[in-house]
Amino acid sequence: MIRISIIGLGLIGTSIGMALHNADASTAALGATRVVGYDQDSHAISTARGRLAIDEGTRSLAEAVCNAHLVVLATPVQAMRDTLAELATLLPNNAIVTDTASTKAQVCRWANEHLPAHISFVGGHPMAGKEQAGAQAAVPDLFQDAIYCLIPGANTPQVAINVVEALVADVGARPYYIDADEHDAYVAGISHLPFILSTALVQSVSRGPAWKEMAALAASGFRDVSRLASGDVVMHRDICLTNRVALLRWIDDMIITLQTIRDQLDASDAAELEQLFAEAKTVRDTWLSNQSGLRPGEEALTRTSQTERPGIFGKLWSSDHKRRS
Amino acid sequence: MIRISIIGLGLIGTSIGMALHNADASTAALGATRVVGYDQDSHAISTARGRLAIDEGTRSLAEAVCNAHLVVLATPVQAMRDTLAELATLLPNNAIVTDTASTKAQVCRWANEHLPAHISFVGGHPMAGKEQAGAQAAVPDLFQDAIYCLIPGANTPQVAINVVEALVADVGARPYYIDADEHDAYVAGISHLPFILSTALVQSVSRGPAWKEMAALAASGFRDVSRLASGDVVMHRDICLTNRVALLRWIDDMIITLQTIRDQLDASDAAELEQLFAEAKTVRDTWLSNQSGLRPGEEALTRTSQTERPGIFGKLWSSDHKRRS
Repeated sequence: MIRISIIGLGLIGTSIGMALHNADASTAALGATRVVGYDQDSHAISTARGRLAIDEGTRSLAEAVCNAHLVVLATPVQAMRDTLAELATLLPNNAIVTDTASTKAQVCRWANEHLPAHISFVGGHPMAGKEQAGAQAAVPDLFQDAIYCLIPGANTPQVAINVVEALVADVGARPYYIDADEHDAYVAGISHLPFILSTALVQSVSRGPAWKEMAALAASGFRDVSRLASGDVVMHRDICLTNRVALLRWIDDMIITLQTIRDQLDASDAAELEQLFAEAKTVRDTWLSNQSGLRPGEEALTRTSQTERPGIFGKLWSSDHKRRS
Repeated sequence: MIRISIIGLGLIGTSIGMALHNADASTAALGATRVVGYDQDSHAISTARGRLAIDEGTRSLAEAVCNAHLVVLATPVQAMRDTLAELATLLPNNAIVTDTASTKAQVCRWANEHLPAHISFVGGHPMAGKEQAGAQAAVPDLFQDAIYCLIPGANTPQVAINVVEALVADVGARPYYIDADEHDAYVAGISHLPFILSTALVQSVSRGPAWKEMAALAASGFRDVSRLASGDVVMHRDICLTNRVALLRWIDDMIITLQTIRDQLDASDAAELEQLFAEAKTVRDTWLSNQSGLRPGEEALTRTSQTERPGIFGKLWSSDHKRRS
């Protein structure tokens, strides 16, 4: 029986709990699990409990993690610094910690700074989400077939990596190993920049007096491009601040691209516009056609295969495997 | 039996035909219809025919419209100028012409310039679409509950407006009367600007050597914000060129908004960023919650009610109602 603690019962934490609850213990990579949950907001705990995301809620972080084999941090990014510092003295020997934050370099630095040597940390980021926030928005299949980025530290033991990879498998996602800085630069472009565009679009079009009438005409195109603007405000503020440099670079690049299109349009340059639109369409259609099944290069980047998962716990929690001793 | 000619059998023209085919003749506002279709591409004609969007395909524009009561122009915007000029000598007395172009001021000017006085023109723009183009992508419920902008000319007889409004009702959409210039300014913001953002996003993120790996991480956020980039290239080129001035204004506004966010992020101004994100979220959530049912102010803008529709044809095509005589 693997004891898992989920700290932070928002959309992601609660969805992970629900996915684990739905997993079949007889075939799951983690086997049977017992999930304890904690959130500063007691209402989130009762919602998560009511939705069967956790077997038990606790009133304190200490209580939540005192027996944990695996701790999943799913708080907003900025809260992780303090939580990691607190966990340092609360975690049992050889516990494994992973997180779900959308930016990784900063969180991995905090983990390195605060967690003692006997604790293994594997940074994680499931590439899934939705604009609704909170435990009530959670769904068990949020991570189904999603890419789940994993960033082990230089000294993270393989067995800890295997445990986190088993968690990834049991929530239905696919592990994708990547360097923290690369991760942050990439997601700044394909995740955080799109959020900024959604938000800036809504800001731009809604500022004027005509917005009321424009809103009546806005249809599926506006709905989709603006979708991310409905996302969690604090989460996105934290993401932007912890991924500032990479995101600034992408916003600058985006402004240049918009200026290029603007100038072509100003010159009524039909041929240039058509070529630019056609290029973007080809790229996007190609990306979309690769979306189902494995992504290009994905197999090479995935370290371990499913067949390596059984039996990973014996090693870690057997009495002769205490790294602290 | 109302004879309708659909000119241009792409996504929109074919979807209109399919929606009309699915309408119940005994309750439809137009009553029984016979739909003739024409497209320069004979393959589009056979696809539309095979999908039951048209009762008959023709080999020429002349043949398609020679007996038409109502002509629906669904070609790309730029092609409408020549088509309207050709139609001038081909249309029977008192025919009604409507179009489906995404920009309206230019098309209404062309109609005014080319169509003789006995022909009634009502500009139209269904606020619905999808990124796939062509007759094969058409669906009968594309316009279900969608807003359908209608722009009658200053001298368009009410009976012609009623006929086009009946078409709108029979494809499942809701008429929304608006001035052509207002329409163009508004859709530039809520439809054409989102397309430009989708396209610019794809251009920006896919230019560098890291795109291959970034593509593997891109998830639903990127998918939705980039969706419009997969749209029809020629259609969007035409839209941008015929709505150039309004769109330029919105792109400039968008660049300013992005620069504001950029500067707040550069200064790590958490409070300002949070406020800006929260404002956009509120606007977008409010818009979304008004999406089902009637939009604010919509009833006041809709000229006629459903009960006025029956019997509209007797007036127009009765022998004593020939405006040309």
